[in-house]
Amino acid sequence: MIQKTIKKTARREQLMREEAEQKRLKTVLELQFILDKLGDDEVRNDLKQGSNGVPVLTEEELTMLDEFYKLVYPERDMNMRLSEQYEQASVHLWDLLEGKEKPVCGTTFWLKFLFYGVEDH
Amino acid sequence: MIQKTIKKTARREQLMREEAEQKRLKTVLELQFILDKLGDDEVRNDLKQGSNGVPVLTEEELTMLDEFYKLVYPERDMNMRLSEQYEQASVHLWDLLEGKEKPVCGTTFWLKFLFYGVEDH
Repeated sequence: MIQKTIKKTARREQLMREEAEQKRLKTVLELQFILDKLGDDEVRNDLKQGSNGVPVLTEEELTMLDEFYKLVYPERDMNMRLSEQYEQASVHLWDLLEGKEKPVCGTTFWLKFLFYGVEDH
Repeated sequence: MIQKTIKKTARREQLMREEAEQKRLKTVLELQFILDKLGDDEVRNDLKQGSNGVPVLTEEELTMLDEFYKLVYPERDMNMRLSEQYEQASVHLWDLLEGKEKPVCGTTFWLKFLFYGVEDH
């Protein structure tokens, strides 16, 4: 009886963890969408001017996000194995999810905010 | 003493889970890289002909991967919230990681294989 309860609890915890991981995966896809949008001149202008209902970002904040973009989408470095490069990129994404990515962390708020701002742009 | 051991074990399990999740995140980035490559005419030709050390894919297999691409990078559907679309995309990616994505599953092998084939293309 107790064995059964333990098993049930373990199963439920496993499901909850999987659900949480899938949610984080969704967040990664959303982050990628936003970072991609930053390459769009129209969106960039909106962000600089706060037009079209988008929050204003300072040049500094935009630069910070551009720098983060390069960490997550590194240019191919032929001195490194591709899988090493992706290893590093995934660590940066992971750290951002965990709130450990400095100095982009301060902009995590912006990223979330932005998402709703440019959602249907 | 036992309490301490339990705590330590829990901590170690937590770290192992995080490491596993970060690895899966890396796999997602690699998958995205491969799926992106499928849009490149040169790579496509290599895949059809098996040239440049790349394994041959049949038209059927390429179509299957193209279909999966659309699931993971859906075109914007204005009748749906963006976050709903990403929810669905992340479920497909997740299922692929879990080996549950039919019929792309059969091509998971190809995806892995491909990765090494087009790695430094």
